[in-house]
Amino acid sequence: MFSPLIEELIGALRCLPGVGPKSAQRMAMYLLEKDRDAAGQLARALEQSIERVGRCSQCRTLTEQEICALCGNTRRDEKSLCVVETPADVLAIEQAGNYHGRYFVLHGHLSPIDGIGPGDLGMDLLERRLSSEPLQELIVATNPTVEGEATAQFIAERARAHGIVVSRIAHGVPIGGELEYIDGGTLAHAFNSRTAFFSGGRES
Amino acid sequence: MFSPLIEELIGALRCLPGVGPKSAQRMAMYLLEKDRDAAGQLARALEQSIERVGRCSQCRTLTEQEICALCGNTRRDEKSLCVVETPADVLAIEQAGNYHGRYFVLHGHLSPIDGIGPGDLGMDLLERRLSSEPLQELIVATNPTVEGEATAQFIAERARAHGIVVSRIAHGVPIGGELEYIDGGTLAHAFNSRTAFFSGGRES
Ligand SMILES: [Zn+2]
Ligand SMILES: [Zn+2]
Repeated sequence: MFSPLIEELIGALRCLPGVGPKSAQRMAMYLLEKDRDAAGQLARALEQSIERVGRCSQCRTLTEQEICALCGNTRRDEKSLCVVETPADVLAIEQAGNYHGRYFVLHGHLSPIDGIGPGDLGMDLLERRLSSEPLQELIVATNPTVEGEATAQFIAERARAHGIVVSRIAHGVPIGGELEYIDGGTLAHAFNSRTAFFSGGRES
Repeated sequence: MFSPLIEELIGALRCLPGVGPKSAQRMAMYLLEKDRDAAGQLARALEQSIERVGRCSQCRTLTEQEICALCGNTRRDEKSLCVVETPADVLAIEQAGNYHGRYFVLHGHLSPIDGIGPGDLGMDLLERRLSSEPLQELIVATNPTVEGEATAQFIAERARAHGIVVSRIAHGVPIGGELEYIDGGTLAHAFNSRTAFFSGGRES
């Protein structure tokens, strides 16, 4: 209905996650009518990012640098390594603010059905870090999904073989969450993982 | 928190209407992690659009062509001209499907405070069309805002000077809308513009 080039722009905007036909149209009109400078900046940022953003040679997070800011920060605790699925997970943990060690980003999880094996997740690099760094603890923060758990299991075994203490972040009812609105799977896990009220230990 | 280039991309995505910091981050991660082809296509579509999309020489809608598809369609009724504020309004009216005439796009409304006068809205071109085309009716479909009404008034007087019948689209309670949820201004307008039930004329 719009001209071919505008329809192409609307189509390209629709590839963005969470953008439906109406939003894409509104975005295209806004850029063309109100802010072509912003459109140009977005085009350049996209091109530069595609061309230059790769992975940190130590933790595999997305960065245009050889070594990311977190890996390059000598004040981070080098005895602790946290394994996550995505760069966004690193950000979420940093924003929580109580972890001060280093990271390793898998960019996914083991998924034999999709042909994603250890090699795709940088396990060789992780192995090298497990054997060469003064690590005391490996925290596995993959997602609490079937694939995330299988990946956690796989990594935990590798780390144990290197004599490193492995832990998994806790899963359960979110702080401030109301039981009524928590899904059954989470609630079942929360019951199975319950801890004793007085001793602080786990009931069996 | 992400690398400078990724933060730049997130910032550029935030310029899109309706995109907050969380969505922008999710979009950037999606493009860089999952679909760099889509990112490249979006960059190219933006660049091409900025460079080539201008305005139709007859109706001023956005197009990369000299004359848009609607103006170039000889089967459209050339006796009727509809004036709208934006190219998206043209699409909305086309989708409604009961208007078959031609259009004129103002790209805004009169707004002395913002320094937007008749010249910015293409009134010279509109005047030329009013005096040279076989128009019988001008339908003013500017928005029912203070500025939209003032703009409608301005255009109506010009058209009347050319002996053309001028009409304004009806405003009131949307079909299927529930009174309970309609804003007071719309409802007040709907009462003031009420029509007689039996004669079909307007009560005074
Ligand atoms: Zn790094
Ligand atoms: Zn046109």
